[in-house]
Amino acid sequence: MNIPRRSFLRSSLLLGSGALLTTLTARAAAAEPPATETDFWGVIRSRRSVRKFRPDPVPDAEIEKMVAAAATAPSSGGQRPWKFLVVRDRARIDAMREACVRRALARYDQGGGKPEGRAEAETGFRNRIGGYFTAPAFIVVLTDNQSRYPSYAHWDGPLAAGYLLLAARALGYGTVFITDSIPDEVTREVLRIPDRYTRVCITPVGVPVEWPAPHADGQAGDFVAYESL
Amino acid sequence: MNIPRRSFLRSSLLLGSGALLTTLTARAAAAEPPATETDFWGVIRSRRSVRKFRPDPVPDAEIEKMVAAAATAPSSGGQRPWKFLVVRDRARIDAMREACVRRALARYDQGGGKPEGRAEAETGFRNRIGGYFTAPAFIVVLTDNQSRYPSYAHWDGPLAAGYLLLAARALGYGTVFITDSIPDEVTREVLRIPDRYTRVCITPVGVPVEWPAPHADGQAGDFVAYESL
Repeated sequence: MNIPRRSFLRSSLLLGSGALLTTLTARAAAAEPPATETDFWGVIRSRRSVRKFRPDPVPDAEIEKMVAAAATAPSSGGQRPWKFLVVRDRARIDAMREACVRRALARYDQGGGKPEGRAEAETGFRNRIGGYFTAPAFIVVLTDNQSRYPSYAHWDGPLAAGYLLLAARALGYGTVFITDSIPDEVTREVLRIPDRYTRVCITPVGVPVEWPAPHADGQAGDFVAYESL
Repeated sequence: MNIPRRSFLRSSLLLGSGALLTTLTARAAAAEPPATETDFWGVIRSRRSVRKFRPDPVPDAEIEKMVAAAATAPSSGGQRPWKFLVVRDRARIDAMREACVRRALARYDQGGGKPEGRAEAETGFRNRIGGYFTAPAFIVVLTDNQSRYPSYAHWDGPLAAGYLLLAARALGYGTVFITDSIPDEVTREVLRIPDRYTRVCITPVGVPVEWPAPHADGQAGDFVAYESL
């Protein structure tokens, strides 16, 4: 699973420069996306937000496993109000990106941005969001407003989305829970999502170019309170 | 992890009544709480809502592991707005139960319930909610309204709560994501939760008297849509 980079670094310091080349080779190997992860705590630790992807496709079978895992999440009165819209059509993924850029430029113009700075602003924005759109797949997590208890879906939606992200990590895929960076209106318009559905989030799904460092172990400290706040 | 009850049953059918006693013994053993579970997919499959608990205490170290796992959940802009209030004081747990009963009886009276049916209504209600309060511990999942992006906490809260439930299952504890059954007002009043916090849910935490059957594998069917809805 997660590559013990620090141990590589430490061994290079201990062994001196003679070992450095070997160590660099080992570190290059360490940058390879880690294999699938079946240890529960390993999945928890190494599930990080990923923002740049390799083009390797995400097969149906893997998508189904992620969605099936998401659909084991608890829901209010067992209503399971979820829908997972999978997008792998490159033209539609690119269309989402371009719609994001158009909205950013509209904001630039409305905010009184100078015409001579517009190209640079566009480049900056494309750089900021470009990594997401290197993903070969996206999943839009939705809840159905016609579910049995629609006013409870605001709990059910994120619960299932969270399980989806973990399952994706277990299978070797990176994700990131996106709200504002790809606005609701963009997904709704480009993917023609009916008003019947409320979007929880959208996430790219793909093999990471590099996994971020795993979470440190056991950081309960400030989050936990015993008996009273 | 989960006990293959069907296989016990099948073997008793195959072997005839001579094997039945052995099978019943095996099934009694099967009702024992399963061990901890470290396989990711095993945790996903066997995390079920649990509503009746053994009195075995939940040590601090296990609580910390659950909360630490919850705190690896993604949050908006990394704000991590969470607070996990742990309650193991029996008097406070009982006080929550009694506050729930009082509210139910007040509703009974306000709804024009007849005085002669009141005792029966109370017994029915106590039976309905009693199992939750057999738990040796409760965790109230909260978000802090003074976090950086409070209007995004409605996503962050359930994400962390969902991870907490999985981690509890991995450690051998049952949970259930409760909203209405133990009303917000009850926890706020009994546990003196400041207005500063928004409650996501409350969950009992304890060793289940019995684990519900695990989720079936691979139920993505109706939940997934490819390219369009």
